[in-house]
Amino acid sequence: MFQQILDATNRLQGFVHQTPILSSLTLNKMIGAEVYFKCENFQRIGAFKFRGAFNCISQLSDTEKQRGVIAFSSGNHAQAVALVAKLLGIKATIIMPSNTPQVKLDATRGYGAEIVIYDIETEDREEVTAKIQNKHGYTLIAPFNNTHVIAGQGTVAYEFLDKVPDLTTLLVPCGGGGLLAGSAIAAKGLNSSIRVIGVEPELADDAKQSFESGKIVTVPVSKTIADGTRTTALGHMTFPLIQQYVDEICTTTERAIIEAVKFHLLRMKIVVEPSGALGLAALLSKSIEPKGKVGVIISGGNIDPPVLQNILGE
Amino acid sequence: MFQQILDATNRLQGFVHQTPILSSLTLNKMIGAEVYFKCENFQRIGAFKFRGAFNCISQLSDTEKQRGVIAFSSGNHAQAVALVAKLLGIKATIIMPSNTPQVKLDATRGYGAEIVIYDIETEDREEVTAKIQNKHGYTLIAPFNNTHVIAGQGTVAYEFLDKVPDLTTLLVPCGGGGLLAGSAIAAKGLNSSIRVIGVEPELADDAKQSFESGKIVTVPVSKTIADGTRTTALGHMTFPLIQQYVDEICTTTERAIIEAVKFHLLRMKIVVEPSGALGLAALLSKSIEPKGKVGVIISGGNIDPPVLQNILGE
Repeated sequence: MFQQILDATNRLQGFVHQTPILSSLTLNKMIGAEVYFKCENFQRIGAFKFRGAFNCISQLSDTEKQRGVIAFSSGNHAQAVALVAKLLGIKATIIMPSNTPQVKLDATRGYGAEIVIYDIETEDREEVTAKIQNKHGYTLIAPFNNTHVIAGQGTVAYEFLDKVPDLTTLLVPCGGGGLLAGSAIAAKGLNSSIRVIGVEPELADDAKQSFESGKIVTVPVSKTIADGTRTTALGHMTFPLIQQYVDEICTTTERAIIEAVKFHLLRMKIVVEPSGALGLAALLSKSIEPKGKVGVIISGGNIDPPVLQNILGE
Repeated sequence: MFQQILDATNRLQGFVHQTPILSSLTLNKMIGAEVYFKCENFQRIGAFKFRGAFNCISQLSDTEKQRGVIAFSSGNHAQAVALVAKLLGIKATIIMPSNTPQVKLDATRGYGAEIVIYDIETEDREEVTAKIQNKHGYTLIAPFNNTHVIAGQGTVAYEFLDKVPDLTTLLVPCGGGGLLAGSAIAAKGLNSSIRVIGVEPELADDAKQSFESGKIVTVPVSKTIADGTRTTALGHMTFPLIQQYVDEICTTTERAIIEAVKFHLLRMKIVVEPSGALGLAALLSKSIEPKGKVGVIISGGNIDPPVLQNILGE
């Protein structure tokens, strides 16, 4: 799998942004460690999801490309698939729930994707998707349970350790586990002694429960502010990889997440979505004892303006 | 003067952040040019002012350093002088108006400076400053009307063109003119054909009036949202440099400034204070016709949370 991440790194050259790595002297002094942030909020579409989608879609056969792709997502994966399809001249259909904010509908449509809205009260997402998929022969691009997607997400950590090889610890937000699994494989491949820690909200701790019990645990849809981690369970492909390559999963409170978003915004001057701020939240709330050089992956920066307004008022 | 900027660049090594240069594919497509942003919002204290303060204070004589420094400012210059003094082990006294927001008082005090508050209704800032200065023998660190300060600010453009030498145009926010004068000298020294354009709010267009009339014009204190440019006039040192090295001064509306802050925030994922967003405001509102590679200096990112909340609600 490490080789697939290397291949993905080459495949993504020229399409993906080499996102900057930032640090904060104020933070380092506060917590007594050297913290480096890999800023995927500066990635195309504002999140790491572009990497996995590109690595996956660009490897489809010509026939599959001619038919088109389909995905269901109301968030960053939707925009990632839409933009990649546009760049590669492929038709994309995105299935979105009826409660998707207008701004996300517009952004996805802005990349030229066709949007199909399903009623969350009366329709089943999978059924809607399968029906359209079967009719047109579209290829489904899964958000995390797909080897090429996982390998693509792993390029984040690969780029990160290529620039800062001697990280002792790597903190990675965890939703469905694609970013965490891919990053853990890449990080351990480059530096076998690095500790890789997944971070998720206390309110959506399915990964921690799964990791500790040794089987995939499903939780109800969470109301956590970290909307990118509301996935109810790890995937059957991401879970075993996380078991094998990740050292620990820790959780953070909603309060810590909000404080982390504010610190990123007001002290570091960067916009980070709540899911993207999980690593800093774990550090600020001392869920993790930092030692030496700590790497934190900021997964994305797509935050709705009203949510940001509320956080600023806290 | 160009030599002084080179010297300042060496002097600042290891103290100043080499701030990143960012760009936005979305913006480039929107306006049909390649735009590069030099992000001084990521500078220490969140603004370029650290550079000038460091270049100035570090060159004081030992006697002057032993006595201490004094400055008046409610904004970024206050924090810059306070932090530089702290780093160099020098006592700093900052004179701040009684209406300074608590957050700025705290930040400046946080760097270990002594704060003296004067009553804006009944006291005169210069008199208060002179009295303390004379009593203790402090050296006054002017915010822009000082050669070493101007040379320090010029290092922004020096670093910028060192990385992107073939800029055709450089847009620089203009308040008292220290950043504009220093940057123009640095830019023309490295690339004689570059066009350097100062940008200020329509509501505080003293620099434009001065530039066009050939003498320093003073305007009343402006209510522009770009609080870093509320200075009522250019300095007697910055004005002739601006006349000699700057090609044009253009103005932007308050609406354009707000739109630019929002674009930086929601599309580029960076926090930029209104004064720092003047360059983008000029581009978005087509006050400037961009050609080829356009450089924009983002001067800082220190924005009060309530102001940011209001802008998000616009």
